[in-house]
Amino acid sequence: MRDVSIIGVGQTPVGEQWDISIRDLAQQAIREVLADAGRQRVDALYVGNTLGGSVSGQQHLGALLADFAGMRGIESYTVEAAEAAGGAALHTAWLAVAAGAVDVAMVLGVEKVTDMVGPARLTAHGSLLDTDYETVQGATPTALAALMMRLYMDRYGVGLEQFEGFSINAHANGTKNPYAMFRNLIKPGRFATAPVVSPPVNLFDGAPDADGAAAVILVPAEMAADMAPKPVRLAGSAVATDALAVHDRADPLFLAAANLSAGRAFRQAGIGPGDVDLFELHDSFTIVSTLALEACGFAGRGEGWQLAADGRIGPGGDLPISTFGGLKARGNPLGATGVYQVVEAALQLRGQAGESQVPGPRVALTQNLGSLGATAVTHVLTLDE
Amino acid sequence: MRDVSIIGVGQTPVGEQWDISIRDLAQQAIREVLADAGRQRVDALYVGNTLGGSVSGQQHLGALLADFAGMRGIESYTVEAAEAAGGAALHTAWLAVAAGAVDVAMVLGVEKVTDMVGPARLTAHGSLLDTDYETVQGATPTALAALMMRLYMDRYGVGLEQFEGFSINAHANGTKNPYAMFRNLIKPGRFATAPVVSPPVNLFDGAPDADGAAAVILVPAEMAADMAPKPVRLAGSAVATDALAVHDRADPLFLAAANLSAGRAFRQAGIGPGDVDLFELHDSFTIVSTLALEACGFAGRGEGWQLAADGRIGPGGDLPISTFGGLKARGNPLGATGVYQVVEAALQLRGQAGESQVPGPRVALTQNLGSLGATAVTHVLTLDE
Repeated sequence: MRDVSIIGVGQTPVGEQWDISIRDLAQQAIREVLADAGRQRVDALYVGNTLGGSVSGQQHLGALLADFAGMRGIESYTVEAAEAAGGAALHTAWLAVAAGAVDVAMVLGVEKVTDMVGPARLTAHGSLLDTDYETVQGATPTALAALMMRLYMDRYGVGLEQFEGFSINAHANGTKNPYAMFRNLIKPGRFATAPVVSPPVNLFDGAPDADGAAAVILVPAEMAADMAPKPVRLAGSAVATDALAVHDRADPLFLAAANLSAGRAFRQAGIGPGDVDLFELHDSFTIVSTLALEACGFAGRGEGWQLAADGRIGPGGDLPISTFGGLKARGNPLGATGVYQVVEAALQLRGQAGESQVPGPRVALTQNLGSLGATAVTHVLTLDE
Repeated sequence: MRDVSIIGVGQTPVGEQWDISIRDLAQQAIREVLADAGRQRVDALYVGNTLGGSVSGQQHLGALLADFAGMRGIESYTVEAAEAAGGAALHTAWLAVAAGAVDVAMVLGVEKVTDMVGPARLTAHGSLLDTDYETVQGATPTALAALMMRLYMDRYGVGLEQFEGFSINAHANGTKNPYAMFRNLIKPGRFATAPVVSPPVNLFDGAPDADGAAAVILVPAEMAADMAPKPVRLAGSAVATDALAVHDRADPLFLAAANLSAGRAFRQAGIGPGDVDLFELHDSFTIVSTLALEACGFAGRGEGWQLAADGRIGPGGDLPISTFGGLKARGNPLGATGVYQVVEAALQLRGQAGESQVPGPRVALTQNLGSLGATAVTHVLTLDE
């Protein structure tokens, strides 16, 4: 099994991009990543996308995007795991390079979802949950997050205001990211009084759907040093699953897939939570951030929210998270999100995070979740020695 | 890179299965393949599916199906490449086992499409073509196949009746397959007078959409001998792409992706077309069979149809194809088709093909195409020594 490194990253602005098609959005990220890696083409392209068929009426993105990128003929196909599609596509590319089947692999996450509004968007989101047992009952991702948050607040005696640190941090970090969808601050104290969406989840709690595309290029680690000034090692890559329906899980407040995949990725990299310098987590809702921190070993059960309340998750804290704004402020382009996380983590390790830079990180963790934790994909990134 | 072998196969009947959901259909194949391999669980599940979101309103099949199969927690996600999804999922599993990341991997192809009829089905199929340049102009897979067939007949001076051998062979073979959707014979001479769908493509020419699920289990070859009486080596696995839109291809009558992926798979296996004892090809239309035979080196340009006309593709011929009925008679469950092909090829090599058995095959080729050849996935299967 070959070691694998990242030699290029690329991304587009995140937001409502109504004036370009999904193929053009993807091409922007492909041009960026090729330029960053100083290459014209790659040997394979793995696409992370989840709603291309239902929103844009366009599936079969592998062949389509490889051709439009001028790389007709290469191996290419799409990987889907709801919002964890980008992370799962990266895992597939890692498998291909680690196996020795492919030398230079591109991973592209792309999603174009904001063209579709109202009930149609809700229907599209509903297809990512357990349709027969959740969606037909009227459950939505936001409603399920609200149930989880309410249960958490009740079980552990936590107040709504104690989640505010996650959103304040994300928006503060978003102001420094030129690609972020939201670049406004949330003032302390305003979180708990924001307009309610599905109680207790409010407008300042959940991450916005967005359009965007991000890409990375992977090569065998032994080739990376000659191909890039600062290659970043992909030291761990692990996918795990849980029951799709939240009510079917052993404990709705324990993200078992996140726990399993983080454990596997840590073992592959030979590290533990204490070695992590920054964590790009899946902050689709503040309750999901809380539970992810607990599942990955950064906090005890019922204590994840304290990292935010104590200010430890900021750029100068001991565990910076959502350093470019996270899903909450950078925006959540669903199947592209997992690739954005890895682009951002790689920029941090390369010391090229601009105003978002945290001080001298050497180990970064990313975790991409699908359908409130039914799929979890965890990656460990380190600086190549 | 580890060698990889198949230790189990499973399939469901192919046809219109309106009384069970996509998850139940998938479970049938999962039960079959686990029983065949004598196992209770696997380490990873890769799902090939293409229209789950648009037809069943259910995506995120990886987590869903892993859980319902009693394997909650394992690595699992979906792979999509239009009708080549099943083949691409198998390729992903091959990467995972070859890399050493996974020891026991299941590949499941599943599709449930016949619930949706009329314009909605056409819309779903349209999402697999180039939406902006083909589908919005009114093109459908059948209409595009008709254009290709008409061009072929004109360029090479071939008559409609000269394609009949493909459908006659497929239906004759389908009568012997208890899982086949169609088990009726097509009489010689009836093909050219069948009701026209999109001229010159007629009702006896194109394969029917169908519901179905098929699965295989892969392990490292060195473990296979202790796990199964007759393991089948996956000696080659290759994915290639072409322009998605047929009119964008260098020559609409040359399946470049099929050619590339077959070439790669042959090189991996160290064999050539002359070594192939049977070929499960993607006979979605007779013109596609013709072009696939040419692209894979079994016939010269403009001569693929002659293998059918000369009777060489039957069970006793020198290149048996569609030995269980192919897409045309077994039925075409889209994202499951590529896995059915491999199940059938493995049964032939194991000598367990029942009435469909061809005499003593040692090398089988399968090729799964998406959107009339925009994606091609080729596998070479051989008997483990």
